[in-house]
Amino acid sequence: MSNVFGNKVKVSIFGESHGNGIGIVIDGLPVGFAVDFDEISRQMQRRAPGNSALATPRKEEDIPEILSGIFNGKTTGAPICAVIKNTNTKSHDYTPQLLRPGHADFTAYIKYGGNSDYRGGGHFSGRITAPLNFAGALARQILSARGITIGAHIKSLENICGSSMLSSDINADLLNMLNKNDFPLLDESLKEQMVASVLAAKNELDSVGGVIECAAVGLPIGLGSPFFESMESRIAHMMFSIPAIKGIEFGCGFNIAQMRGSKANDEFYLHGESIKTKTNNNGGINGGITNGMPIVFSVAVKPTPSIARLQSTVNIVTNEETAFSVQGRHDPCIVQRAVCVIENALALCLLDAMESDL
Amino acid sequence: MSNVFGNKVKVSIFGESHGNGIGIVIDGLPVGFAVDFDEISRQMQRRAPGNSALATPRKEEDIPEILSGIFNGKTTGAPICAVIKNTNTKSHDYTPQLLRPGHADFTAYIKYGGNSDYRGGGHFSGRITAPLNFAGALARQILSARGITIGAHIKSLENICGSSMLSSDINADLLNMLNKNDFPLLDESLKEQMVASVLAAKNELDSVGGVIECAAVGLPIGLGSPFFESMESRIAHMMFSIPAIKGIEFGCGFNIAQMRGSKANDEFYLHGESIKTKTNNNGGINGGITNGMPIVFSVAVKPTPSIARLQSTVNIVTNEETAFSVQGRHDPCIVQRAVCVIENALALCLLDAMESDL
Amino acid sequence: MSNVFGNKVKVSIFGESHGNGIGIVIDGLPVGFAVDFDEISRQMQRRAPGNSALATPRKEEDIPEILSGIFNGKTTGAPICAVIKNTNTKSHDYTPQLLRPGHADFTAYIKYGGNSDYRGGGHFSGRITAPLNFAGALARQILSARGITIGAHIKSLENICGSSMLSSDINADLLNMLNKNDFPLLDESLKEQMVASVLAAKNELDSVGGVIECAAVGLPIGLGSPFFESMESRIAHMMFSIPAIKGIEFGCGFNIAQMRGSKANDEFYLHGESIKTKTNNNGGINGGITNGMPIVFSVAVKPTPSIARLQSTVNIVTNEETAFSVQGRHDPCIVQRAVCVIENALALCLLDAMESDL
Amino acid sequence: MSNVFGNKVKVSIFGESHGNGIGIVIDGLPVGFAVDFDEISRQMQRRAPGNSALATPRKEEDIPEILSGIFNGKTTGAPICAVIKNTNTKSHDYTPQLLRPGHADFTAYIKYGGNSDYRGGGHFSGRITAPLNFAGALARQILSARGITIGAHIKSLENICGSSMLSSDINADLLNMLNKNDFPLLDESLKEQMVASVLAAKNELDSVGGVIECAAVGLPIGLGSPFFESMESRIAHMMFSIPAIKGIEFGCGFNIAQMRGSKANDEFYLHGESIKTKTNNNGGINGGITNGMPIVFSVAVKPTPSIARLQSTVNIVTNEETAFSVQGRHDPCIVQRAVCVIENALALCLLDAMESDL
Repeated sequence: MSNVFGNKVKVSIFGESHGNGIGIVIDGLPVGFAVDFDEISRQMQRRAPGNSALATPRKEEDIPEILSGIFNGKTTGAPICAVIKNTNTKSHDYTPQLLRPGHADFTAYIKYGGNSDYRGGGHFSGRITAPLNFAGALARQILSARGITIGAHIKSLENICGSSMLSSDINADLLNMLNKNDFPLLDESLKEQMVASVLAAKNELDSVGGVIECAAVGLPIGLGSPFFESMESRIAHMMFSIPAIKGIEFGCGFNIAQMRGSKANDEFYLHGESIKTKTNNNGGINGGITNGMPIVFSVAVKPTPSIARLQSTVNIVTNEETAFSVQGRHDPCIVQRAVCVIENALALCLLDAMESDL
Repeated sequence: MSNVFGNKVKVSIFGESHGNGIGIVIDGLPVGFAVDFDEISRQMQRRAPGNSALATPRKEEDIPEILSGIFNGKTTGAPICAVIKNTNTKSHDYTPQLLRPGHADFTAYIKYGGNSDYRGGGHFSGRITAPLNFAGALARQILSARGITIGAHIKSLENICGSSMLSSDINADLLNMLNKNDFPLLDESLKEQMVASVLAAKNELDSVGGVIECAAVGLPIGLGSPFFESMESRIAHMMFSIPAIKGIEFGCGFNIAQMRGSKANDEFYLHGESIKTKTNNNGGINGGITNGMPIVFSVAVKPTPSIARLQSTVNIVTNEETAFSVQGRHDPCIVQRAVCVIENALALCLLDAMESDL
Repeated sequence: MSNVFGNKVKVSIFGESHGNGIGIVIDGLPVGFAVDFDEISRQMQRRAPGNSALATPRKEEDIPEILSGIFNGKTTGAPICAVIKNTNTKSHDYTPQLLRPGHADFTAYIKYGGNSDYRGGGHFSGRITAPLNFAGALARQILSARGITIGAHIKSLENICGSSMLSSDINADLLNMLNKNDFPLLDESLKEQMVASVLAAKNELDSVGGVIECAAVGLPIGLGSPFFESMESRIAHMMFSIPAIKGIEFGCGFNIAQMRGSKANDEFYLHGESIKTKTNNNGGINGGITNGMPIVFSVAVKPTPSIARLQSTVNIVTNEETAFSVQGRHDPCIVQRAVCVIENALALCLLDAMESDL
Repeated sequence: MSNVFGNKVKVSIFGESHGNGIGIVIDGLPVGFAVDFDEISRQMQRRAPGNSALATPRKEEDIPEILSGIFNGKTTGAPICAVIKNTNTKSHDYTPQLLRPGHADFTAYIKYGGNSDYRGGGHFSGRITAPLNFAGALARQILSARGITIGAHIKSLENICGSSMLSSDINADLLNMLNKNDFPLLDESLKEQMVASVLAAKNELDSVGGVIECAAVGLPIGLGSPFFESMESRIAHMMFSIPAIKGIEFGCGFNIAQMRGSKANDEFYLHGESIKTKTNNNGGINGGITNGMPIVFSVAVKPTPSIARLQSTVNIVTNEETAFSVQGRHDPCIVQRAVCVIENALALCLLDAMESDL
């Protein structure tokens, strides 16, 4: 029952989709860092709703107000609180007694005894990732100043599958190229098909999901620990905090389970002064610790559960079976909006690891 | 840099493969529970080495000595420390300067400045899962007394794929049936092929991996929280603490990313007094919280990195490229031994959630 | 480097005295509790500045805005964020390069490399106890509904010493009587002397401190644990988080060190169905665990370090010795304002213990 | 309900007085530190029972066995587990149903439902400070290598009061001089009186307590944080984990509450290149952060609750009032044995702060 994450760089999130505001407190950031607010805004815009036909028409400015922790444009060492007021809410769209399939309505109702703020999903809303995205964007700037670059792409969308970054040379240029794109793909030629897939689902009052592959380069060797502080544990812990994520795999992930050891093992070689691996099937992590190769992982994003189609459900108040279609403004696909959240959430994990482990 | 896991039921593990001993401290267990040591022993035997041609010939009794926290056969409320002395070590088999591909030798060397106990992988050894298995077996007994049953099967081994439990009715009987088996499979007819696959790899001085699917039934609704204490976050955190795990997915996992929302959403219906879902694509968890359906997840186990084949590597002392084959006694496949570790590690997560969340 | 406290009821505080706002995030509160905002306001007024000649003339309304976690007047189970905007700041009064003796100016300057928000003491300001007071007031209501009453009095002020509650019968009536008073004393006859002491110090551009004794009755037996979660550890941890606290003692505290065991030991007797102790020299805690007797402890509050007298110091920028007098609006005594902060901070500790330990 | 302490240097303790063994797991220590086991033994001997007429005649070697985390005499970065087997127990001396006044018998019985190991106080025994002392002794060596020296003295025993170190020049020489003494005093002339006080109490089947003042010099500026990670919070948290501690004060502590601000404030001056304070009334900590002056604090140690005198109590099984005298071997005074525990527990706090805060 905790909204707190991190060993040294600790974040606490709060807020409901249709309440007064949402936000985050960030403690333990490096001191004296000059924040680039334009870049923060850009990262917030990448996630913000209302930007395309693929996403919800709900428009939010999503510009956080900084209440504390930044003075003369720099981090002070005191906790930063950033708040986003909710401005564009249509709460009459919700009928809380009808449990939306695929959502937390049922579990929240039972756990919190009917006291949850159900409007717009309340605290369970994907909207709560906005402050997480803010904190991650801040962490990312600090990592960037240390030579670490993060990027991600849509590896698959519905049943349209692109290739993995593992098969290419992952470097800062590639990741920066992906970062410039609102719908980042390794192979741009798949875009048309993918967009068509989203629009088709939308047309049919349905939704689609996909897989995002994310990478970080420029990392030091030595982040993470064996067992409970393995980098896989920490990154997975964070990623499964993001609504709609149902799977994560590092490096070759589930495919590595089909390989022989002789193929799966990443052999070492000398690259100038440094030791590298010929392949990166382990995704940059050995024994829970970064090995200096790119960290690479993929997450499965389920299709948006809010769909306008008729679905069977139960009325939790009357305890009767019924059918209904979810009203309100929803995304036929959140994969493209989730890309930056995944990237920035990774940044938060990595900065916390750098501050606490080294 | 932490060997501690849990909110209320906290475990701390320690030990190296070839040191004096390995063990675990368990705090916060329910008080007054009468421990069934025979059942603990059985769980330890399921993981223990030296039991079949598929595993390492190193034999360890692996019977833990209880130093504290149990009095007159019952938990006292004080921390339990369980220690397993290492008795059958052959440390001359290791040449630490040659970095074993797929292992933590390189990352450990850099992180700990060459001070690690490298013998048998030291603290990174899969052997350290024995005390984790012990703690989990204890937690499992307590869960069992509360009507919760856990079981797992080998869903795939190398490229031999069985079916998912999600397609069948998951109940305590099924899980108990799997529990009776040293090589648990949903479809016994695959066993011959799988064993042949392991022996073939062994013959070729190689190794294989696989996928384990695990489930728990009888759970209350309401374990877990949104965001950083989601059940997915906590279970994934634990699973990635186990060496060789490279991926995890809940419910349909990566497959759900290919579904439309209308198919992925688990519709609600009335089952007598209670509300259930027609499908369980979300693996028993909505919004991070258990919904009363079986928790189902799969983990990818990479092939054992220790293989007798010649591999390229670097000598970290002389900084020269070289080739070598890993000596010592190793498992051509650890999947079947990992099954109970996955089950018992899940038990630890679930008991911690029950004690801290309800 | 953490602004987070609590095992299950977790608070994160943020803010600077002259920044945009101060506040707190509270997670893990019991769900469905109907908040009495009038009572919260009353507790905020007890701490608020500008209320008497004994305190700073800075006036703040200190009414928190609730951003999240309360819906239809009740706690929802989601984190509560409460923000107090800073409205009445006079930042030109501060010359940060002159280190104020007794303050954190020097340590903050070194620790944060000159990046702190120094205005009004920034994050180190006693003002940051306002949100802590809010969270505690909320916790206190919940405790009150469970039959637990908290109260405190000024045991001594400068060198005017009153008696300890330990020598009287501590019950809810006594504590409630103290709660009605802005300057709570066991012996009202001391008030005149104490007020005179504060005004004399004020006149001489100086300040005074004192000792607050706090008690809680109605507690269950069994809160706390031996060692690191002893109730003394947790209460002391919280109390030393409050600026200006320099000592804490439980029960007879330092006096118990002068007693013989035969006098210090609290002998048991039967009181109807329950077991009580004849004396309460241990302050309601044995072996770190509440024994059902009143929890009683005292804290030492140092004299307000901000005084208008000329003091020697160093200019940290020019590295020269100099003398100066602290400008701005300050309290000649904060003891009477601290009383409710101590009480409410205790409430937070106790509620966290009730939610996590039982 | 947690036996874990520390942010980065984490310790988990376990064990009961008359169980199989007691011990500690220490994680997060600096890597590659060559441990001086002779010095560890010396610190263990300072605490060990059976050394003088002032203490219990129970003799224990108290030499811990290292199970893990040290290889070739150096810390490896993996958790260290140290175990002390219990060898000299006389469990027939205990009648658990008779609640010993001043002990945890009653609270433990209620909290743990009669399941505790009651023999010799079980997990509540002062004996469990032996592994804490071990961990602290290790931390202390590491601090010592960084130029930090810790020492303590008996400031008062029963009603015989010595002076405070604050009135003298606290430096490494003074502290090292105290360290050489089994009964460390600032003024040796008080020893005779104090010893007489203990022996008189012993003769009268009674016990005495006292106050220990402890200091550390050579500390960096910047350990600790405002609020919940203040150094006072962390040190107090640790100290109240030690059985029998009922009060703590930093610097002048409770006396500072009687001073005017102009006297209490520690004025700054230049000492060569560095900034120091003329007085050290705040005990080396401002705003929760070390200021480079010696850390100085005092703790109140209550008289040993186990006394042979007849005391009133309740039989918890029959629920009848009765009288009894505590049998077994007990210390008429534990103050002199607690000195090194206080010192070493401080070392653990300080090392954790250095590793996590800087």
